[in-house]
Amino acid sequence: MSDSVLIVGSMALDTVATPFGSVEAAVGGAGMYASTAASLLAPVNLVGVVGGDFPQAALDELAERGVDLAGVQRIPGGKSFRWSGSYEYAMNAAQTLDTQLNVFADFDPTLPDAYRHSQFVFLANIQPGLQLRVLEQVESPTFTMCDTMNLWIETAREELLAVLAKVDLALMNDAELRQLTGTPNLAKAAGEVLDLGPSHIIIKQGEYGASLVNHNGHFSLPCYPLPNVVDPTGAGDSFAGGLIGLLAWLGDCGDTALRQALAIGTVMASACVEDFSLKGLRRLGVGELYERYEQLREMVRLTPCPLQP
Amino acid sequence: MSDSVLIVGSMALDTVATPFGSVEAAVGGAGMYASTAASLLAPVNLVGVVGGDFPQAALDELAERGVDLAGVQRIPGGKSFRWSGSYEYAMNAAQTLDTQLNVFADFDPTLPDAYRHSQFVFLANIQPGLQLRVLEQVESPTFTMCDTMNLWIETAREELLAVLAKVDLALMNDAELRQLTGTPNLAKAAGEVLDLGPSHIIIKQGEYGASLVNHNGHFSLPCYPLPNVVDPTGAGDSFAGGLIGLLAWLGDCGDTALRQALAIGTVMASACVEDFSLKGLRRLGVGELYERYEQLREMVRLTPCPLQP
Repeated sequence: MSDSVLIVGSMALDTVATPFGSVEAAVGGAGMYASTAASLLAPVNLVGVVGGDFPQAALDELAERGVDLAGVQRIPGGKSFRWSGSYEYAMNAAQTLDTQLNVFADFDPTLPDAYRHSQFVFLANIQPGLQLRVLEQVESPTFTMCDTMNLWIETAREELLAVLAKVDLALMNDAELRQLTGTPNLAKAAGEVLDLGPSHIIIKQGEYGASLVNHNGHFSLPCYPLPNVVDPTGAGDSFAGGLIGLLAWLGDCGDTALRQALAIGTVMASACVEDFSLKGLRRLGVGELYERYEQLREMVRLTPCPLQP
Repeated sequence: MSDSVLIVGSMALDTVATPFGSVEAAVGGAGMYASTAASLLAPVNLVGVVGGDFPQAALDELAERGVDLAGVQRIPGGKSFRWSGSYEYAMNAAQTLDTQLNVFADFDPTLPDAYRHSQFVFLANIQPGLQLRVLEQVESPTFTMCDTMNLWIETAREELLAVLAKVDLALMNDAELRQLTGTPNLAKAAGEVLDLGPSHIIIKQGEYGASLVNHNGHFSLPCYPLPNVVDPTGAGDSFAGGLIGLLAWLGDCGDTALRQALAIGTVMASACVEDFSLKGLRRLGVGELYERYEQLREMVRLTPCPLQP
């Protein structure tokens, strides 16, 4: 039996256009992507809020995957969080067209009692004050990690630093890492984040993969190569969900486990971007997860240095 | 005894400013960086041209490293190729301030007889017509590779395609790959380049490392992490020189050799960027090369997938 994962994050209706198609008010949000990914590997306790407009079928599907929804509030008269964005042909960055917080604006999560004993915690990208309040309600987690975004680095820096002081792992992309530290060199900037509290940082590098930095050193993996990326929305959240899911499945957060978890997250992200909304992730089974992991492992296989020192 | 490497490329006087200092008319150029790197591992036959202003000491130092200079023309009354550039704080792209071709404008290389039997050939970034003329003079090379740049993709596309049809390995950065193919997805674009002739493509991804793509699959390595990068000039050429140097040292260009060579090139690039001009590369010995290679190998070590398929 795997340890349980607590995930707090947005549950959204996304309108997205990419060069390969578009969707309107499709189910998305960091909490949805991360819990869909994590639930392939471990029981998930989800914390979030939706309005009356959120499709019940999407919640039912999560429940079937073993996601506990006791921590999901539904505000019948309210509207769900909505995001609208588009991607250019290179698809390396979303252009946000519109964000409506709606029911998320007054979100103040109280954890169900059963959630307070969750061992693995992922604080997806929400206001860092909310991340802190959730974290304070978990009794003695084994491993905690947080995501963030440029908006909070600008507008809620002190609260974000308080979160970073408490979590085991900080997840951010290279632009956020540079923005937070003011240091352009990624290796140096990563060291500066470790000085803020976390034992580990994972730097998401979009199409170039991801790197784990801690006091033991560096670990890097490329993306799983896909000639047809349909929609990058949710890739980072699927990555994070897969990562925390594998740690919970293993019940371990040592260096070997973290490396394996980063690879599992990379595969989850690859499945996510192959289709719109949660469709790619939902199709991913353990067989394909295993196959892609082993392909990634072959992609970084390096034999010993042939030179004599 | 290693096989011999033929390198053709620019020999330049560079004026460079970075946030960490500047140099004026310092020895540089793709041919100089690549042959300095390769000569740590194999005998090098260098083809290039310099003016009367090129420091004899720099040529003497190459000769001491085992670089044959019979293919280097000196035009006593001429001026050497000069490049001037600067880097912003993030140092991910040079801004070219000035380029003077000088003696390079009329360069039409004729190989010394002894060079015609070179087994490993690196055509550094010069006009693709010149790359072709050099290649035609080598009798039956074991392995050939070329670099290029945005200028030739724009202005000499047909000649560049003729070079690509003849070499074993094409080296380019991600922007050049997208420009050449018109395809933003790197995995797809790499496949399109393989269709043009080369058996292998290596995509240089700056601070994110490099990837080898061929019909066997993908191989990726991150950069060697350095908290203090002083000057990125010559990193790609040092990478290429180390890569071809190791292939010649091994006398092999199979998949295992290419992966090892990509790692050696990555380490050469790391030594290059630690100082201005050739200083970092010249300091690098086999002991440090070995050490950094093994650190890189540790950075990508991934254990088998813990899940059962």
